[in-house]
Amino acid sequence: MSGKLYVVGLGPGSPDQVTPEALAAVAASGELYGYGPYLDRLTLRPDQRRIASDNRQELSRADAALASAAAGNTVCLVSGGDPGVFAMAAAVCEAVEAGPSEWRALDIVIVPGVTAMLAVAARVGAPLGHDFCVMSLSDNLKPWPVITARLKAAAAAGFAIALYNPVSRHRPWQLGEALEILRAILTAETPVVFGRAAGRPDEKIVVTTLAQADPDLADMATCIIVGSPETRHVAREGLPDLVYTPRFAKG
Amino acid sequence: MSGKLYVVGLGPGSPDQVTPEALAAVAASGELYGYGPYLDRLTLRPDQRRIASDNRQELSRADAALASAAAGNTVCLVSGGDPGVFAMAAAVCEAVEAGPSEWRALDIVIVPGVTAMLAVAARVGAPLGHDFCVMSLSDNLKPWPVITARLKAAAAAGFAIALYNPVSRHRPWQLGEALEILRAILTAETPVVFGRAAGRPDEKIVVTTLAQADPDLADMATCIIVGSPETRHVAREGLPDLVYTPRFAKG
Repeated sequence: MSGKLYVVGLGPGSPDQVTPEALAAVAASGELYGYGPYLDRLTLRPDQRRIASDNRQELSRADAALASAAAGNTVCLVSGGDPGVFAMAAAVCEAVEAGPSEWRALDIVIVPGVTAMLAVAARVGAPLGHDFCVMSLSDNLKPWPVITARLKAAAAAGFAIALYNPVSRHRPWQLGEALEILRAILTAETPVVFGRAAGRPDEKIVVTTLAQADPDLADMATCIIVGSPETRHVAREGLPDLVYTPRFAKG
Repeated sequence: MSGKLYVVGLGPGSPDQVTPEALAAVAASGELYGYGPYLDRLTLRPDQRRIASDNRQELSRADAALASAAAGNTVCLVSGGDPGVFAMAAAVCEAVEAGPSEWRALDIVIVPGVTAMLAVAARVGAPLGHDFCVMSLSDNLKPWPVITARLKAAAAAGFAIALYNPVSRHRPWQLGEALEILRAILTAETPVVFGRAAGRPDEKIVVTTLAQADPDLADMATCIIVGSPETRHVAREGLPDLVYTPRFAKG
């Protein structure tokens, strides 16, 4: 007997930004795997099992969830944001490719969610309103020269840039160097947004410029948006400025 | 007396992918502006006004909604997907910047949603599981040489690429040329996903390769995902193949 695996995005953090589809997948599951703080967002029934693991154990968590589904259970793997953006969906696919052949026969349902950059962008205007790139700054999973080459290519081609995983305890200097690389290509006035916990009670959104951007504003859970050469700043008295990238680009 | 403007993303189309926050904004609004097919997704009360306009009248629609909010009404502008990705949030910011100064004092709340590429990616695996770019192929709003330069930069730097607005009645040849540009940089086996109406009853998802990708598979509402050099294909007997970009990149 074969079970089912849901891979679910819980959105940026507010219960108001979780889709009904995600809630239904959680409710249908007997076992829920995930990073502890994501599982803490759920209200589970007594008959549901909660299996928390560390943030960096993505592949072993995917293996465990797949093995349980293969044993006949209905299982849910939860991600914050969207599971397809620097999250569990890729880890599940990796595990399926490397795992026993019966895992390829499993019913796997991926449930999308509101990813962090969209929630952060919404709080300031529309900085991702035209072409943009999305990058993880973590050099745990790719060489640092690949990251710097991509930053340069994206900025030079006129993309706005959303940065995930900008810093961690083991990666203290990378964000500062990334900002230096961008300062060599973009103007000092390029808008930069630091967004953390968008939509949650502890939300912290800072709008600044590339010249002023301070890496200490970011932690592991911050999403940073760097404007393109077209991105604009609209001052509003008594209200936060709007930051947006126009729908048209002069080129 | 000043009103309020919500700019709301209704997600890719399924009611199960609309957030409670978006539904609450719709329910709180007396007037709802949008492209007709997006407004058709809503169940409105008799006291709510529906103001539909054509897909290409984004700026005049934003002007009308802002003017109504400035007159004291609670107004909702609806987008499909997420309002910040090639949608109404940027048009609203443009209108605020160009409009009367009182528009800058308005309470504007942007409500994020699940954008099309996330829903399409979820149906096939995790093609956006590592760094990626997001581009509109429409040359109504930017010169074609800007688009081709960005396509080349993104593909050469190793980004997966999500393409919005790939074709329209007035833009019949652009997608074919874009695919030719990508074929000169990426291998013939690079996975390509054509996704339309993800999550809706009329969903159509086609997984193919760059060599085989046929522009006729796309219409205005299709989101196309082109893999990076790292993107992989996992065959599954009796089930659709998985397409994913691993969390690690060799570079």
